[in-house]
Amino acid sequence: MHAEAEGRDVAWERRTEIPLFYLSLVFLAGYAVRVLAHAHSLWRDIAAITVVLTWLCFIVDYVVRLVLSRQRPLRFVRRHWLDTVIVILPTLRALRMVKVHDAVMAKRRDRPHRSLYPRVITYAGLSSLLLGFSGSLGLFDSERRDPHSPIQTFGDSLWCVVQTLTTVGYGDVAPVTVSGRLIATALMMFGLGLLGAVTGSFSSWLIQIFRRDDEEEPPGDAPSPGAPH
Amino acid sequence: MHAEAEGRDVAWERRTEIPLFYLSLVFLAGYAVRVLAHAHSLWRDIAAITVVLTWLCFIVDYVVRLVLSRQRPLRFVRRHWLDTVIVILPTLRALRMVKVHDAVMAKRRDRPHRSLYPRVITYAGLSSLLLGFSGSLGLFDSERRDPHSPIQTFGDSLWCVVQTLTTVGYGDVAPVTVSGRLIATALMMFGLGLLGAVTGSFSSWLIQIFRRDDEEEPPGDAPSPGAPH
Amino acid sequence: MHAEAEGRDVAWERRTEIPLFYLSLVFLAGYAVRVLAHAHSLWRDIAAITVVLTWLCFIVDYVVRLVLSRQRPLRFVRRHWLDTVIVILPTLRALRMVKVHDAVMAKRRDRPHRSLYPRVITYAGLSSLLLGFSGSLGLFDSERRDPHSPIQTFGDSLWCVVQTLTTVGYGDVAPVTVSGRLIATALMMFGLGLLGAVTGSFSSWLIQIFRRDDEEEPPGDAPSPGAPH
Amino acid sequence: MHAEAEGRDVAWERRTEIPLFYLSLVFLAGYAVRVLAHAHSLWRDIAAITVVLTWLCFIVDYVVRLVLSRQRPLRFVRRHWLDTVIVILPTLRALRMVKVHDAVMAKRRDRPHRSLYPRVITYAGLSSLLLGFSGSLGLFDSERRDPHSPIQTFGDSLWCVVQTLTTVGYGDVAPVTVSGRLIATALMMFGLGLLGAVTGSFSSWLIQIFRRDDEEEPPGDAPSPGAPH
Repeated sequence: MHAEAEGRDVAWERRTEIPLFYLSLVFLAGYAVRVLAHAHSLWRDIAAITVVLTWLCFIVDYVVRLVLSRQRPLRFVRRHWLDTVIVILPTLRALRMVKVHDAVMAKRRDRPHRSLYPRVITYAGLSSLLLGFSGSLGLFDSERRDPHSPIQTFGDSLWCVVQTLTTVGYGDVAPVTVSGRLIATALMMFGLGLLGAVTGSFSSWLIQIFRRDDEEEPPGDAPSPGAPH
Repeated sequence: MHAEAEGRDVAWERRTEIPLFYLSLVFLAGYAVRVLAHAHSLWRDIAAITVVLTWLCFIVDYVVRLVLSRQRPLRFVRRHWLDTVIVILPTLRALRMVKVHDAVMAKRRDRPHRSLYPRVITYAGLSSLLLGFSGSLGLFDSERRDPHSPIQTFGDSLWCVVQTLTTVGYGDVAPVTVSGRLIATALMMFGLGLLGAVTGSFSSWLIQIFRRDDEEEPPGDAPSPGAPH
Repeated sequence: MHAEAEGRDVAWERRTEIPLFYLSLVFLAGYAVRVLAHAHSLWRDIAAITVVLTWLCFIVDYVVRLVLSRQRPLRFVRRHWLDTVIVILPTLRALRMVKVHDAVMAKRRDRPHRSLYPRVITYAGLSSLLLGFSGSLGLFDSERRDPHSPIQTFGDSLWCVVQTLTTVGYGDVAPVTVSGRLIATALMMFGLGLLGAVTGSFSSWLIQIFRRDDEEEPPGDAPSPGAPH
Repeated sequence: MHAEAEGRDVAWERRTEIPLFYLSLVFLAGYAVRVLAHAHSLWRDIAAITVVLTWLCFIVDYVVRLVLSRQRPLRFVRRHWLDTVIVILPTLRALRMVKVHDAVMAKRRDRPHRSLYPRVITYAGLSSLLLGFSGSLGLFDSERRDPHSPIQTFGDSLWCVVQTLTTVGYGDVAPVTVSGRLIATALMMFGLGLLGAVTGSFSSWLIQIFRRDDEEEPPGDAPSPGAPH
């Protein structure tokens, strides 16, 4: 009986994976229009309704999975904490994009583990783009209400996010509101991880080349180190 | 006789480990209340007394261990320099939290070395939270006395600490007093180490995956690279 | 027939490699003179013509290779995306310098793979110098037209670029125009990669030393860790 | 005859190593007094003479080695470029401290390669302290002459150097003179390398632990990950 319940749970996830991914893109587009459109336009109202409706879908999905899992709520929340975060911040769901991208790419190649470094770089790049765009929208939405904030246009917000993700931090435009600073803090942490991903890829790639060099001693054709050219 | 003295030394450490850990949390809470409470409240006085009393306990513990070790003071100080630092800055003692957390976690799992990367990340996260909170308190305490400082609320202090630990450093709020700058310097160094921990974990994890791929050549089910999703 | 076409394509590339490399240096020099010379000098006009002429050469080269490849244009653009970027931003072509440098160095040594770490450091250094200089020129060109920009001399622009590439980012001079911020963003991303290259080299070098130590157990003459001295 | 000349060269280096190291400390102390003492004090004059005299010693040493090596000057300069840099910036000679420290430490331990990570950390720490102190002196000396500079005390200069070495870069105090910015640029590059050293050590240490875990499969006593506690 427990196995059957699990089966229905897994089946639900398998079927809703792709629709919910597209729904998350709709959510992101709706949020973008709501933030960037003029104050009293019709588009803004449509976008607001879209955001609320898609959010409701995510909540319904979460509740259905909670019921289907037949676990106690607290246990479910703890084991699926990432899903819980995604329900509260649905923009993060679009990060599943990397999973979909991976699935599409896996069909094309027969030896997927060869492409580990490009894949890590692709993940890092796609996640940065997505988080950077979502973060810019949220930051702009928080900061423009404060007249003392240096972030008054979406361009300023994008510029602030780029500085934050690369941990450069000029500070010519920095958030002043509490919600803006929370968003920037989240982006800083992601930036730290991004730095770790780039550095780690480079490091393990160099080690890989070196080990191969040690094994194939004949010095005729050393592998090119693939410098940026 | 020396062995017996060492035995008493070790026994003392084993028995005081847990009480002193909780005492360090009391110290931290007392310090937080003393810094954050209103100037003339009763809570503030109680907190000040708590801080002094717990600090005295740490000093007594240090002296007892110095006596039990039967070593010359200078030698003891040099060999136990970390304990000496902790006596001077008792807020660091709460970092033993990670040891306690480790001990608790070790009981649950049978193959602890599998969880090296999560453990490093957990350590880094807990240490960052603890050091960040303590540092914010100290920074706020130092800076609010200076009317020219941009750090006038605890929120500003937290924001400055977050910028420092992630090495972003916008600089919209930066310490101006000597003690504030010393605290920020300590946090910068910890931030450098934090960056190293995140990067190092990522790097060794990628190498681990790659080596496993090289050994299990059959390309059927390549291990998922565990991208953020 | 397809093989013959490819042959002509490869032959063209082989013959134009060195001339186009020198042409890219001429382009860079011309651009530098155009940006740095006084407003109404003759040099500036000559430089502008040089820039346009060399740029035309790059475009002609691109079109010739597109025709010789006998591929559909879209497919060619996608497969040679790096060349496409270089046609739009010809200053990047000078980065082929590292390839030329590599070819020259390869002739001198018989075991090139021994010099992996110096080579990575050399690549990183040369690329940083070249990108930093080109970026400073572009940044200066963008920013000096805006009277509110803090970047008013070429020295300010260089200083801003150095801060960006090392991800320090004081922010005393930061770009305010859209094109200046785009250039800074590109430099930030390169800076992130540069950090990864330095860290990765150091990391894999340490691992290399450690492994050698493990294999040659006799502790007589441990390899010097090569500290900066 | 060439071998004999080399022999005299090596003998000269071996004999002058320790005296020149102490002389470099005298140089650094003299430079510190010259920069930090009051404008018209006697100490300042004595310090200036000390600086000049020790600098002369370094130049004489360089010339003697150039003559003893019986090489053409240009070839000597290129092969000993580090020594050439040290003659121009004698404060860097004190970095040989790490070599002396290494030699002293090597006598105490019988298996030096065990201590690779502590040694790298010690090198990084000593070099940071030395370069940070020298850099602060130079920065202060350059900046205080400019009335528009935010660096007016030695404390400001130290604070700026700490921000730079850790790549945090608040930018509340940033150099404005050309020589100050050159010093800061050098410190930024060293900071980049420092980050690489810390990260690389952490990374290779994690890999080391992981490999040992893989080899000693019995899961009884997993090695402690040595978290900061």
